Amino acid sequence: MSQARFNVVGIGNAIVDIISRCDDEFLQTQNLSKGHMQLIETTDIEQLYAAIGPATEISGGSAANSCAGIASFGGDTAFIGKVNDDEFGRIFAHDLRAIGVKFDTTKATDGLPTARSLVLVTPDGERTMNTYLGVSPELNHGEIDASIIKDAQVTYLEGYLFDRPEAKAAFEQAAKIAASGGRKVSLTLSDAFCVDRHRTEFLALIKNNIDILFANEEEISALYETSNFDEACAKVKSDCALTALTRGSNGSLVITPDQSIEISAIPVDKVIDTTGAGDLYAAGFLFGFTTGESHETSAKLGSLAASEVISHLGARPEATLSTLARNNGLI
Amino acid sequence: MSQARFNVVGIGNAIVDIISRCDDEFLQTQNLSKGHMQLIETTDIEQLYAAIGPATEISGGSAANSCAGIASFGGDTAFIGKVNDDEFGRIFAHDLRAIGVKFDTTKATDGLPTARSLVLVTPDGERTMNTYLGVSPELNHGEIDASIIKDAQVTYLEGYLFDRPEAKAAFEQAAKIAASGGRKVSLTLSDAFCVDRHRTEFLALIKNNIDILFANEEEISALYETSNFDEACAKVKSDCALTALTRGSNGSLVITPDQSIEISAIPVDKVIDTTGAGDLYAAGFLFGFTTGESHETSAKLGSLAASEVISHLGARPEATLSTLARNNGLI
Repeated sequence: MSQARFNVVGIGNAIVDIISRCDDEFLQTQNLSKGHMQLIETTDIEQLYAAIGPATEISGGSAANSCAGIASFGGDTAFIGKVNDDEFGRIFAHDLRAIGVKFDTTKATDGLPTARSLVLVTPDGERTMNTYLGVSPELNHGEIDASIIKDAQVTYLEGYLFDRPEAKAAFEQAAKIAASGGRKVSLTLSDAFCVDRHRTEFLALIKNNIDILFANEEEISALYETSNFDEACAKVKSDCALTALTRGSNGSLVITPDQSIEISAIPVDKVIDTTGAGDLYAAGFLFGFTTGESHETSAKLGSLAASEVISHLGARPEATLSTLARNNGLI
Repeated sequence: MSQARFNVVGIGNAIVDIISRCDDEFLQTQNLSKGHMQLIETTDIEQLYAAIGPATEISGGSAANSCAGIASFGGDTAFIGKVNDDEFGRIFAHDLRAIGVKFDTTKATDGLPTARSLVLVTPDGERTMNTYLGVSPELNHGEIDASIIKDAQVTYLEGYLFDRPEAKAAFEQAAKIAASGGRKVSLTLSDAFCVDRHRTEFLALIKNNIDILFANEEEISALYETSNFDEACAKVKSDCALTALTRGSNGSLVITPDQSIEISAIPVDKVIDTTGAGDLYAAGFLFGFTTGESHETSAKLGSLAASEVISHLGARPEATLSTLARNNGLI
């Protein structure tokens, strides 16, 4: 296998987050499922936007956040995702490139607008996401650049891509290219509701095509339809070669057929906004993995990145993660 | 004089801030004058945007920030300013209405885009602004709603409006309507460079038409072309009935022909971003002034609002200022 130019190429929905604070009562009034992502259509997002308070716009998107994190650690990374050539598309592209991620997917010049997600953050820091996908799933016109995928140690795919047929096809195409080039394929389960929607396909994929799996407790439990976390861990151990499970303030668990390693979370003074916690954990883990660190150190890099991103609003790092990692003796 | 529906109507540039962190060296490389606002054109803002790091988009605009602050204190306020019916225009309108400001100025549907300012925040929290005005100055087609101005105790105008002829004409029209209706007219000097550009006109205006003047040390010194702050204070005392001068961490000074009152600043743990400090001081002061508070209490409300806004990124309050004021025993 030849030397790879990129540590990781991420493929996912290209989204700008519209972040606003609200209380739990507001979520109930709007019938929103706290802590989850729901897909919404144009009229619904307009109604919800009109109902929320003042907002802040920050680039987001699960896999894109992970790529931003890897770049901040000093890794070489590329992102494949679809935006329109509109204001939000320009913001998304700028922010990704500005942090050092290669991003060359052709912008759409007509049709649907760039995706956006109304992210409602409650006082406990939990985020509830309402995503309008717009042009984002349209990854079916040669956007999957085989040369980049072949040139990346890991192709990292977000489960959210399964929510639309064109995006799912792109996902499958990318996974195939990576595998045929002898590269690793990594998946994040994204959201428990998303797992519910695509359980059978996710299970087959994990058994046959995924080298590195990321999920949180709720997602892995949803996958195996069990409320028993240990049972889910035992099952994933036989289904996947390498799994990293995040458990919020209880840290994370790295599972291989040989062993399970528990890693503590890094405590933060105050959780401001959990958006991006899982994405940044994956960023740290994959940066460690692709630079030859042990699973333990990789998981610690994941915890570090997650602790940074939940200390402020928005799902991308504000601090330079390479500096943070050096200051913590991790690299 | 009849009862007024609004405490304050603000008129100013309708801007979305694109906020990014940078170091002092970057400002030097880009030949940017730290702490100031410079106007830039389309190609320049594109070049500068390409050069800066990842950014956050938050609604701004000087007088609009003040209106947001007054609404957060629980005041009734309206804003007059021009946006286009584009993504940034929708963001601006949403954020202003969502905090409770009446905003009905007709959106442009073609022509120039909504104004934006690249706000570069250095590690000391100081902001350097690079503003593309776009459609914002086009306040010359009946946008000045006389009924709102007649129905507001104070018409609050930003000095920045003088930078474009159409906006300046709107400024003068609004001041005239307010004065003829027996209402107060208030001006903020906005920026020392802006004062340099319009000194003679500002001086005449202050002597003849302005009831309440806001400025910081640098702006009032620029107005009277002196480096001696006491001299500037003495001059403004004879030129204007009521002046509130902000002095950063040294607090503020309220000057009337009869007296000068010094008010302390409220210390903050860490200054994150000074954008909006003056705007929010004016918000607190004008809220106090229009609700019958003493100059001293009004200035304290100003300090409180300024201390809140410099503790986070962005020029609009994140906390509810009425709650903050109650908790501090000010209202």
